Amino acid sequence: MSAIPPAARPGMALAEIDTPSLILDLSAFEDNLRAMQALAERHDVALRPHAKAHRCPEISQRQIALGAQGICCQKVTEAAVFIDAGITDIHISNEIVGTAKLDLLARLAGQASLTVCVDNLSALQDLSDALVRQETTLGVVVEIDLGQKRCGVQKPAEAVALAQAAEAAPNVTFRGIQAYHGGIQHKRSLEQRRQSCEAAARRVGRFMAALDKAGLTCEVVTGGGTGTAAFDAASGVYTEIQPGSYAFMDGDYGSLEWGESLVLRHSLFVQGTVMSTPTPNRAVVDIGLKSTTAESGLPRPIDLPDVRSVALHDEHLMLEAQTSQHRPALGSVLRVVPGHCDPTFNLHDELVTVRQGKVEALWPIRARGYSR
Amino acid sequence: MSAIPPAARPGMALAEIDTPSLILDLSAFEDNLRAMQALAERHDVALRPHAKAHRCPEISQRQIALGAQGICCQKVTEAAVFIDAGITDIHISNEIVGTAKLDLLARLAGQASLTVCVDNLSALQDLSDALVRQETTLGVVVEIDLGQKRCGVQKPAEAVALAQAAEAAPNVTFRGIQAYHGGIQHKRSLEQRRQSCEAAARRVGRFMAALDKAGLTCEVVTGGGTGTAAFDAASGVYTEIQPGSYAFMDGDYGSLEWGESLVLRHSLFVQGTVMSTPTPNRAVVDIGLKSTTAESGLPRPIDLPDVRSVALHDEHLMLEAQTSQHRPALGSVLRVVPGHCDPTFNLHDELVTVRQGKVEALWPIRARGYSR
Repeated sequence: MSAIPPAARPGMALAEIDTPSLILDLSAFEDNLRAMQALAERHDVALRPHAKAHRCPEISQRQIALGAQGICCQKVTEAAVFIDAGITDIHISNEIVGTAKLDLLARLAGQASLTVCVDNLSALQDLSDALVRQETTLGVVVEIDLGQKRCGVQKPAEAVALAQAAEAAPNVTFRGIQAYHGGIQHKRSLEQRRQSCEAAARRVGRFMAALDKAGLTCEVVTGGGTGTAAFDAASGVYTEIQPGSYAFMDGDYGSLEWGESLVLRHSLFVQGTVMSTPTPNRAVVDIGLKSTTAESGLPRPIDLPDVRSVALHDEHLMLEAQTSQHRPALGSVLRVVPGHCDPTFNLHDELVTVRQGKVEALWPIRARGYSR
Repeated sequence: MSAIPPAARPGMALAEIDTPSLILDLSAFEDNLRAMQALAERHDVALRPHAKAHRCPEISQRQIALGAQGICCQKVTEAAVFIDAGITDIHISNEIVGTAKLDLLARLAGQASLTVCVDNLSALQDLSDALVRQETTLGVVVEIDLGQKRCGVQKPAEAVALAQAAEAAPNVTFRGIQAYHGGIQHKRSLEQRRQSCEAAARRVGRFMAALDKAGLTCEVVTGGGTGTAAFDAASGVYTEIQPGSYAFMDGDYGSLEWGESLVLRHSLFVQGTVMSTPTPNRAVVDIGLKSTTAESGLPRPIDLPDVRSVALHDEHLMLEAQTSQHRPALGSVLRVVPGHCDPTFNLHDELVTVRQGKVEALWPIRARGYSR
C-alpha cells in the first residue's frame, strides 16, 4: 500500500501525527524504566521485564541496556522475533504444548539462552523429545498456581515430581519455579496487595521447602508484576521479577493506589481526532476497538478533565463533555490513556515515540500478531 | 521471521493447523453469502456488505461475484487496501476529518467510485477543498442519527442544509442519506428488532420528506446490519443494506432470536490447543485477548456442550468442564466461536479457510491494522 503516507515522521509536531496512532512519551517511559531498575537493584533481585506487554524489541533493548537480566516472552513465535532482534536471554513464562511449537522452541534453544515453564509430566516429556530431535538444551521452571486458577501445579508433591522428572529427562535442566499471580496485580489497595503478596510468598516457601527436602535447588524463583513488584522484590523469596506494564502505566494500573517505593507515570497514549460533534455535549473520536481495548476500562481523555468516555465501538470512542464549552472541537487532536497496554500494543504495527512535543522515531512492534 | 513455519498449508487436516488460528468454514460461509444475497434480491434492494467486519479482500470479491453492488469501508486506509485489491465501488460509511485523511480520500476518488458520509458543514467544505486540490470528485451521503447517539445529524433541517451545501460545493455530489443504528442490531428479540426498525423507518421517512420538500432527491438510502437486514430490506425505505457479520454469524449475533426469513450459520472460529490441565475440571487454552476479544461475550467452545468459558486473559482462555470426564485432554485442539467478529479479524494476518475437514487456502487479512 505504497499510496498511504506514514502516520508520522521524525521531527513532526505531536498534533500532526495521523490518527489513530500509538504514542510513547519517551521522558515518562525512561523515568519508568529507571524506577523499576533501581527498585530491583535496591533489593538485589534481577529484573526480567515482560515483553508480552509491548512486543517491541526496541523497548526490550533499552531495558537491557539499563541493567535488565533478559526478558520474558509468553509465546514461542514472539520469542523468535525477539531473538531475531538480538535478545539472547529469554524466559518463556508459559507452558508450551504441541509438536509445531515444541520443534520451533527446540530450534530457538540453539540460538539463545532459554527457559520455559512446565506444569505437566507428559508435556515435559514431549519438550525433552523435541530438544533431543533438535540436539539443543534448555532450562525448565516448574510453574506453581498461587491461586489465580490458571496454569501451574497445585501441590508441592507435584512440583517435586516434575523437578525430578526434569533432572532425569535428556536435554532439559531443572532451574527453579515460577510463581505469578495476575489477579493480585490489579487489587486497588496497596495494603491488600501487600497482604496478598505475603500470603503468596508463604505459599512459595512451602513449595521451596518440599523441593529442598527432595534435594532440588531452585536457582531461579521468578514471578511478580507491576502491581506487586515492590513487595515481591522485598520478599526475599523471588530471585527475579517479571513486570511489563510498568514501562507504560496504563489506565488500569493508573487507577491503583501506589506507595512511595515505586513512582510510575503514564507514558503510553492513543492519539485520536474528533471526527463528529453532532450535539453540543458529544464528541466522537476516531479511536475504536481496533486501536485500543475496553476489557480493563474505557480509554480516558487525559488532558480533558471535564470530558468523559461513555462508549467504545469498533471504530468510535464516544465522549461526553460536562458542558458544551468543554466539548473538544471538530478536528481537534486528543490523547487517551488505554485501559490495558498489552492488547493495545498488539493492535498497532508501530509506536510513535515523542519527546518535548516532537516525534523522535517510529519503533516497529515487530512481534505484533505473533501469538503462536 | 523466516524461521517460523506457516500456521497451515493447503491440504492439511484441521487438527494439524498451528494455534491460535482464525478459521473459516467455507461451506457455512458460502451458505451465508447466498442467503443474504437472496434476501436482498427478494426485496429488490442492493447488497453492499461491510468490509470492516473482516478486512479481507478475498471475502469482498466473493460477495461481489454473487451480486453485491460494492462494499462499505469505515476508514480511508482500509478503503485504499480494498481498491488496491481491485474493488471499484466503495461507500465509506463514516465521517472523514483531517487533512491527511482527506487528501488520501481525494486521491482514492480518482481510482474508484466512492461515496462518503458527512454530518457537518465545515467538514463538508474541507472535503470539497481536498477534492478540488486533487481534481477528483465523489458522492456524499448525509448521515442521520437514528438514536444510536454516535455520529449523524439530529434534525431534518440539518440534513437539508448539508444536502444543499453538497449540491453547491465543488467536486462533491449529494447522493442520499445513511441511516444506521448499531444498537438495534443486537436486540435479542426478533419482535423488538422489528418494532425498532419500523420506528427507524418512520424517522428516515421524516428526513426524506424534508429533503424532498427542498427539491433534493435521495438516490441512495443506505444502512441496516445483520440483525435487522430482513426488516430493513422489506421496509421500502432503504435502497441498499450494509450487513457485514452475516457472513460469519459470531457469538453475539448467534445469541439473538432469528426468524425464517434469514437463516445463518456459524462459519468463523478461533482454533486453540489445550496447553494446561492443572485440575480435574480446568483446561487452559492458548487463545487470549490477542487472538479474540471479550467485549461482546466470551468465546464459546462450540463442540463441547459440557464445557464453558470462564475467563479470557491476554494469552489464555480458561475453560471449566462439568465433570472431569468432559474436560478436554492436554494437547487437544478445539474451536471457539468468537463473541464479536470485527475486532477478532483485526487481530489476525490471515484466515485459514477449510472445507470438509481440510485446509483449502490461506486468505490474507490485508486491511488488518488499517485504521487511519
